[in-house]
Amino acid sequence: MSTSHEGLSATITSAANPRVKWLVDLRRRRARDAAGVTVVEGYDELRLALDAGVVPRQLFWCDALADPTTQVLLSRVTALGSEVVRLGPAAFAKASYRDSPDGWLAVVDSPGVPLDAVTLRARPLVLVCEAIEKPGNLGAMLRTAEAVGVDAVVAASPVADWGNPNLIRASKGTVFAVQVASGPTADVVAWLRRRALMIVVATPETSTAVTDVDLTRPVAVVVGAEHAGVGASLLEAADETASLPMAGRVNSLNVAASAAVVLYEAVRQRAALPPGP
Amino acid sequence: MSTSHEGLSATITSAANPRVKWLVDLRRRRARDAAGVTVVEGYDELRLALDAGVVPRQLFWCDALADPTTQVLLSRVTALGSEVVRLGPAAFAKASYRDSPDGWLAVVDSPGVPLDAVTLRARPLVLVCEAIEKPGNLGAMLRTAEAVGVDAVVAASPVADWGNPNLIRASKGTVFAVQVASGPTADVVAWLRRRALMIVVATPETSTAVTDVDLTRPVAVVVGAEHAGVGASLLEAADETASLPMAGRVNSLNVAASAAVVLYEAVRQRAALPPGP
Repeated sequence: MSTSHEGLSATITSAANPRVKWLVDLRRRRARDAAGVTVVEGYDELRLALDAGVVPRQLFWCDALADPTTQVLLSRVTALGSEVVRLGPAAFAKASYRDSPDGWLAVVDSPGVPLDAVTLRARPLVLVCEAIEKPGNLGAMLRTAEAVGVDAVVAASPVADWGNPNLIRASKGTVFAVQVASGPTADVVAWLRRRALMIVVATPETSTAVTDVDLTRPVAVVVGAEHAGVGASLLEAADETASLPMAGRVNSLNVAASAAVVLYEAVRQRAALPPGP
Repeated sequence: MSTSHEGLSATITSAANPRVKWLVDLRRRRARDAAGVTVVEGYDELRLALDAGVVPRQLFWCDALADPTTQVLLSRVTALGSEVVRLGPAAFAKASYRDSPDGWLAVVDSPGVPLDAVTLRARPLVLVCEAIEKPGNLGAMLRTAEAVGVDAVVAASPVADWGNPNLIRASKGTVFAVQVASGPTADVVAWLRRRALMIVVATPETSTAVTDVDLTRPVAVVVGAEHAGVGASLLEAADETASLPMAGRVNSLNVAASAAVVLYEAVRQRAALPPGP
């Protein structure tokens, strides 16, 4: 092993170094869950996570791979007090999740809080995603939720954890900027009841248009899995169901597109209200 | 070569058969452009294409791979007069684009018409997508466009052709159910002018909210590439620019989510109108 320690400029050159192996290990959900951390890779993603207030536990970088214009990250992360570790190209390539690594990778606390720790403002707007399979869809929904300013995004019976690297990447860092939580669907339904949120399930199986549903009240918008849609227990718990007008023959709306339309309908309705308490 | 011809039940067992090689060749855009055809693979995708009115030139199937419940496709396609060719498992695996082929694959005319052949109804609604890179985003936008009932989707300076197999798959077959066309951005701008469409560019760089733009007129909604957004020439040609309200810190909306919100805002505004001519 060829590790040299010189304070901030410690350099790991061996791909067999235990810290490199640990980074590789974090690709497994079990390792992420055990350590309570995950990995953010890439300059753009890391910058967005920092913009969202994330303080990395460790920053790993490779000066041979990092574009000179990106090296502003070093002073920014150093100023946060994070440990900074320099990796040689072989060690970085081993740790990297990507085909073409750009020399930046950080270990951060896994996103997500327990359901009961979710804080809601007055007149909350919450997005509940049940059993979504594709990290790309969850990522797109997080980006919309962040732009809309929802109180929280809750994954009911999720397939992937919030720390899933593909999900983090697809979210463009917004997973760190939005309050996120998860739990089995039954727990999520109980939580929605305790928080007195009106449950509005988006489903094509209703004649009520989303524009006819009052989304100015404290509301949880629920969308379901790519193929199966929202499951029976959330449908039964629904206070309202809402559909989008469909004019075509195939009518196969993407779940992230549906979520965006419903959330922005809530924004439109709420824009007409006087400012909240 | 071990090809047997018995009418509809001709079976190709060799992966080296010229027709199998031709199917493999159609993965290249140049081969698709030369032949004017593309490949639809998978039971679900093929069923949706048929629902959208596609008549396959040829259907290739493999009874060892196809689930018995899917074999209704055989009679349906045969009734359309398409040639039906049975492939052995090795030949099908060679022709397939997938890791886990389901035994169904068809050659169909490539989707898309020349710009000047696009037909518009009264009070048209058109979606223009400039330089979109990800087939998944184009696919999601096609699904929304089909559900909304747009007149056409036009790709300006596209990265992928409409016959791109990943795009077809992401569109869930809707690429065959919507009028699609493409051309260099300059040609698209000239076409929009000739058709007297109001050009509404979706961009975060404007203070005009989309809800304040009159989308009941003959309109083309323009969205731009994932990173760069809409380019200078379409921005200059814009009659209106429109943004979505952004309440967050990161504000990184997915392009297909943006397109969905703007198109459904047009639907909402148009629902209040008396029926068109």
